[in-house]
Amino acid sequence: MINETMYGLGSKSSVIRELFAYGLERKKVVGEDKVYDFSLGNPSIPAPHEVKDALLKLLEEPAEVLHSYSPASGDPKAKQMLAESVNRRFETHFSGDNFYMTVGAAASLNISIHAITNPGDEFITFAPFFPEYTVWVENAGAKLLITPADTESFQIDFEAFEKLLSPKTKGIIINSPNNPSGVVYSEDTIIKLSKVLCKKEKEYGHTIYLIADEPYREIVYDGLNVPYIPKYYNDTFVCYSYSKSLSLPGERIGYIIVPDEMADSKRVMAAVNGAGRALGFVCAPVLFQKAVAMCADVPSDIEAYARNKDLLYNGLTRLGYDCVRPQGAFYLFVKSPEKSGDAGEFSERAKKHDVLVVPSDSFGCPGYVRISYCVAEKTILDSLPVFKAIMEELKAEN
Amino acid sequence: MINETMYGLGSKSSVIRELFAYGLERKKVVGEDKVYDFSLGNPSIPAPHEVKDALLKLLEEPAEVLHSYSPASGDPKAKQMLAESVNRRFETHFSGDNFYMTVGAAASLNISIHAITNPGDEFITFAPFFPEYTVWVENAGAKLLITPADTESFQIDFEAFEKLLSPKTKGIIINSPNNPSGVVYSEDTIIKLSKVLCKKEKEYGHTIYLIADEPYREIVYDGLNVPYIPKYYNDTFVCYSYSKSLSLPGERIGYIIVPDEMADSKRVMAAVNGAGRALGFVCAPVLFQKAVAMCADVPSDIEAYARNKDLLYNGLTRLGYDCVRPQGAFYLFVKSPEKSGDAGEFSERAKKHDVLVVPSDSFGCPGYVRISYCVAEKTILDSLPVFKAIMEELKAEN
Repeated sequence: MINETMYGLGSKSSVIRELFAYGLERKKVVGEDKVYDFSLGNPSIPAPHEVKDALLKLLEEPAEVLHSYSPASGDPKAKQMLAESVNRRFETHFSGDNFYMTVGAAASLNISIHAITNPGDEFITFAPFFPEYTVWVENAGAKLLITPADTESFQIDFEAFEKLLSPKTKGIIINSPNNPSGVVYSEDTIIKLSKVLCKKEKEYGHTIYLIADEPYREIVYDGLNVPYIPKYYNDTFVCYSYSKSLSLPGERIGYIIVPDEMADSKRVMAAVNGAGRALGFVCAPVLFQKAVAMCADVPSDIEAYARNKDLLYNGLTRLGYDCVRPQGAFYLFVKSPEKSGDAGEFSERAKKHDVLVVPSDSFGCPGYVRISYCVAEKTILDSLPVFKAIMEELKAEN
Repeated sequence: MINETMYGLGSKSSVIRELFAYGLERKKVVGEDKVYDFSLGNPSIPAPHEVKDALLKLLEEPAEVLHSYSPASGDPKAKQMLAESVNRRFETHFSGDNFYMTVGAAASLNISIHAITNPGDEFITFAPFFPEYTVWVENAGAKLLITPADTESFQIDFEAFEKLLSPKTKGIIINSPNNPSGVVYSEDTIIKLSKVLCKKEKEYGHTIYLIADEPYREIVYDGLNVPYIPKYYNDTFVCYSYSKSLSLPGERIGYIIVPDEMADSKRVMAAVNGAGRALGFVCAPVLFQKAVAMCADVPSDIEAYARNKDLLYNGLTRLGYDCVRPQGAFYLFVKSPEKSGDAGEFSERAKKHDVLVVPSDSFGCPGYVRISYCVAEKTILDSLPVFKAIMEELKAEN
């Protein structure tokens, strides 16, 4: 009688949420500092002080103006400020009219996908990938195909990718810096991807949209360059969120950029507005629309993440763990050291030592665990002897 | 290539938005105080000071805790506080577990509808009604049937309603206090509705859900009682928003209540969680989840609306306009005084006098105009001589 698909989505917790809930219970038994919970991607660094300053300043404005509806696409002044910031940082030429403010990255992706999807359409993404993509694509009536991971470089396996392309292909979803691998797509990868898509657009005679899901854009290490996708490929939706860059995951604030260079960009932007309306979004929360606009140039405070990354990456590799070299985001992707190579088996073993790591199967790339290092430094330091004990246990068995 | 339904929804402005946009342009020409804009339902009363107090207090908390993700269904403490406030005011017995926090009423309705809808289902609502209901019901794959208005009382025409009920009926949507009529459904109406639905549930052998869209619950005049629907009918979703009651329309914060008494309530609540997930909501904005919980018992400041209502209702009826007696919300529903009885014709005539009122056709009840009196008192006072001139013009013509 009710919708069983929705029931299924609501009744099954994700592996990540289950591990996190287990951790909370376990902490009550053995103590807060005896459980090493690396399950969630919830920023441990507080929002920069500029966010609080902006909120306090905004709260001085008359409440009936401050909290009133913005246009569905967002506050015009906030959108203009964000456009100027993006232009300054990435040498682009957007205006506020290219922006559509959203309730975070999940909304950005959902709205973009709904705007362009017709029944029978297919999207393609690249393993390892964020498992909610499947939920959103299927809810829009399309199908998500997965390009298997290139486990050498965690860039794109173009041979495998090209096999999935077909006249049904409506869009491609990429996520760089990547959750869960921590890898950033190189400029070479983006140029190659762009070339393949341009060729296929001509071959099929229709647009192929590239949806760039980039909440981790600002969280990169060692001054690495993250190519700004619309500069390489015109038919790009930029789906952004301030959840990670400004540590505001619970406030649900982000945006979509539809560049003028996109084919039929005015019609696409109208469809984006229509999708937001159909999905019930009305407008993004206005206080935070204005606050993030005032903080558009505030750099992410990633030093603590960089410290955590180095501690954990160096610590684990010294102990003999095989880790993908992290370049961005706040995840370490570690090969299962089990004889079987199984990720679930290793996650279970670690769990017995009160170390909570997420098996990679749901990310479409079996044989790894994701370790979220957006945690207190002490958790990492205290966990290393436990990771050592786990490795010794494994060696004794084999 | 893109989704034409979404394009259609995004490219056509609503009549309301068009009038509002016209008003902004017109004000530039003739002056701010020479345009009497009654088009929008945007609260003119500022949020009560308790909201700012709550926000300032919350901003003292550590940012990494304050702005972090809440569970998908909402912050457990905020939900419990809201449940206790509802219980105090309406003698109910909810716990926080009956609540699912949302990004406002549009999200509340959309998520509730998606949770229960299967292809081929039908929903029924009552004219006059909020036109977005059609968008949301159709986006969930169902059909919305409209019960014609009872233009005597603006309660429910049960004879017409019962003709629309069928085994396909999945749910009923009611909105009381009503936008646009300003009428509140009496206890008699709710009891009668509940009896009809209970009878039909037995006859059809399945649940019929009653979706109570009630953002105007607190905005009622003369101490009128607004029956609390779940006390009369078990299978009720309460869809609430703080947009009007706390004047926070742009912040997008509200909730859904799924009572324990609803059939299969645990499964329904899981489907609500699933629908929120599928639609990309993740969680409601956390700062405002916590702020509205702290203001759960703060009464709406409706004195200014009551003053506006009396001024406008008394003024217009004295001039010979035929108005529906307003009991709640902040709308006056006025019969078109045109000889033809046409709403659009009167709206156009008024527009020539720089009075902006919304023709009722899109609310499914032709022959009326909606006048939003959530405006400055001065706008109402200054508009009365213009309404007088319009009436004299009409009389001279006939």
